[in-house]
Amino acid sequence: MATINDHYLKLKAGYLFPEIARRVSAFAAEHPDAPIIRLGIGDVTEPLPQACRSAMIRAVEDMGDRAHFKGYGPEQGYDWLRGAIATHDFQSRGCPIEASEIFISDGSKCDTGNLLDIFGNHNVIAVTDPVYPVYVDTNVMAGHTGEANEKGEYGGLVYLPITAENQFTAQIPSQKVDLIYLCFPNNPTGATATKAHLTAWVDYAKANGSIIFFDAAYEAFITDPSVPHSIYQIEGARDCAIEFRSFSKNAGFTGTRCAFTVVPKTLTAKAADGSDVELWKLWNRRQSTKFNGVSYIVQRGAEAVYSPEGQAQTKALVDFYMENAKIIREQLAAAGIQVYGGTNAPYVWVKTPNNLSSWDFFDKLLNVCNVVGTPGSGFGAAGEGYFRISAFNSRENVNEAMRRITESFKV
Amino acid sequence: MATINDHYLKLKAGYLFPEIARRVSAFAAEHPDAPIIRLGIGDVTEPLPQACRSAMIRAVEDMGDRAHFKGYGPEQGYDWLRGAIATHDFQSRGCPIEASEIFISDGSKCDTGNLLDIFGNHNVIAVTDPVYPVYVDTNVMAGHTGEANEKGEYGGLVYLPITAENQFTAQIPSQKVDLIYLCFPNNPTGATATKAHLTAWVDYAKANGSIIFFDAAYEAFITDPSVPHSIYQIEGARDCAIEFRSFSKNAGFTGTRCAFTVVPKTLTAKAADGSDVELWKLWNRRQSTKFNGVSYIVQRGAEAVYSPEGQAQTKALVDFYMENAKIIREQLAAAGIQVYGGTNAPYVWVKTPNNLSSWDFFDKLLNVCNVVGTPGSGFGAAGEGYFRISAFNSRENVNEAMRRITESFKV
Repeated sequence: MATINDHYLKLKAGYLFPEIARRVSAFAAEHPDAPIIRLGIGDVTEPLPQACRSAMIRAVEDMGDRAHFKGYGPEQGYDWLRGAIATHDFQSRGCPIEASEIFISDGSKCDTGNLLDIFGNHNVIAVTDPVYPVYVDTNVMAGHTGEANEKGEYGGLVYLPITAENQFTAQIPSQKVDLIYLCFPNNPTGATATKAHLTAWVDYAKANGSIIFFDAAYEAFITDPSVPHSIYQIEGARDCAIEFRSFSKNAGFTGTRCAFTVVPKTLTAKAADGSDVELWKLWNRRQSTKFNGVSYIVQRGAEAVYSPEGQAQTKALVDFYMENAKIIREQLAAAGIQVYGGTNAPYVWVKTPNNLSSWDFFDKLLNVCNVVGTPGSGFGAAGEGYFRISAFNSRENVNEAMRRITESFKV
Repeated sequence: MATINDHYLKLKAGYLFPEIARRVSAFAAEHPDAPIIRLGIGDVTEPLPQACRSAMIRAVEDMGDRAHFKGYGPEQGYDWLRGAIATHDFQSRGCPIEASEIFISDGSKCDTGNLLDIFGNHNVIAVTDPVYPVYVDTNVMAGHTGEANEKGEYGGLVYLPITAENQFTAQIPSQKVDLIYLCFPNNPTGATATKAHLTAWVDYAKANGSIIFFDAAYEAFITDPSVPHSIYQIEGARDCAIEFRSFSKNAGFTGTRCAFTVVPKTLTAKAADGSDVELWKLWNRRQSTKFNGVSYIVQRGAEAVYSPEGQAQTKALVDFYMENAKIIREQLAAAGIQVYGGTNAPYVWVKTPNNLSSWDFFDKLLNVCNVVGTPGSGFGAAGEGYFRISAFNSRENVNEAMRRITESFKV
């Protein structure tokens, strides 16, 4: 008899975003004329940069010409893309990262989940609370947790609250943890990590033989020049951190699909016999065996992000969304609603008015304002009473959504 | 201290194709002028069909237009592609498969590996020998095997030899196995499975509560009308089989990346408490959590395979490669070399002349003829003494390679 992976049965009813989609669909079915504005899922709305589109059209044309046709590419990505990334995203900021340490993939979501393949089953795992749900769910699936309690917290995970009470800082735990997920600029709170904060984490990880999974998917949205864009700006991080990056948010690739993960060759973890094993070799083997690389066409599109035109066009996109974030922050604050984030990240983290629960505020916002956001409690127990509003939308929709919310919730 | 997944350390030195690449690179470095012809890795060489390229260019243009821009798509793939597949590849052959049972992915290699996520760790697993190495390596990584012996066979796996002695048929095992990998038309041997043979497997699986992983990546190359293209042409297969399909070989998508996996909603496996759990739900949850869908642009390219032009153009591609296969078969046979396969698959499976080992023949072919093939022993112990020659190349290269081989190895 074939048997299933029983750990899947521990997962709570649904991944957050499908549940939101379900409620919105039900509402839309009952109110087919409601002018719904979606500021929920962090999905971009503006056209792909011209430089990326032109590069992809040239790449499609390559595929029609036997001399330039591309079959299987390197599972790790093409050298021209890995090189462009190493130069522009890391070496230009003084980070000692080589092209060969960059693994191109079809998404950071995929990578953060798949990376668990190369780690053992008995690591102590820390996540922030609130947290991007994929970090938790993939650990549940891999059997690294116990059951969930009534608040949705899984046994065996170490939760590090990031709330207004601690200025949205992931405090160093008193106990030893082996794998730590940090996402800065933070999804969902929009908080950032200072250089001192990341230095403390790197020091902790090096002292304890821990590995930091650093998700920098939103680094392009940093406006404060003192905030690090990469964990490799911290000395010693090459020995204790893996970094995730994506073209989804800076260049609008959520539907085009390209991301990358940095695994320094100096990074090791322990085998059962106590020896140190290079994680680069394991991840390289994992990707060679279970992945076949990203579409040549898409990689050419990603490469164009680093052209002068691509850089100008992605900056314009980021600036556009950050202007939306500013409008959201300012309008809500003027209406007396407490807001956080939104200055170095495309998310505004809202304290729900009148102590509404996150889902009650979700339902109210949907019913009264026809605006979709994301309930903070969907990101973890410590997100209860908060609400995430995404800056990814047209200016018109952002203005209209703010008009409706401020009229309804003026306090 | 972070620890690794020690099962990775059981893996043999290298995945087959990287090892071939290493030897070819070393040879090319020593002989920079050698006119190497590559018939090793099963990679296509001819341009992508015009219909697919036109569709992808239109899709890139959609991405430049706010009204048609696509962000995150469904993790399972777009309905228009799932629907086209269900209609053309399954319902047209009488297979009762619905669009919702089709999961679009970036590769069958990825899917065959990732699918293990949803199964338990104590299933008894059967593979053919020779076998596509990914099936074995992903089970080693997942901890489903013991160590390898000197022949490269892993403890705990059930190997089903497919050799000339049994007419390249995967015999039903006498013992009970839970998960069975079958690939027909077969990579590497080029053998096919008859309807009676697949019926026997379906009956076995249903009687034993086993699940068949049916890899039909090469179904487009079937020329014999009596050979099934899908396992769902066998009655009862909906209750015991998952099927893998790809656009890599029929439409030349090895560098473009699109595939799909069929998980019928009627398929179940056992939870620890003895209850039946729908595998569709688990795979849907896995994909929603650890995958973000295939690029919109690429999915539009795949959809075009099903247009009248796309159908004609992919048929022309398949016919072209199968004419290559015919030339390889006939030339080698005329030179007195024993050949198998190559009539319903783009691979010719060669008995090495003079009882050379597979790798000795590889080295000889590379050194003497400057032709790259794939050593049969790289696919498993029972592949020793065999050699795979791929029909994926230009006519000119195939003719030239055959000229060189037949001159050198005439027996």
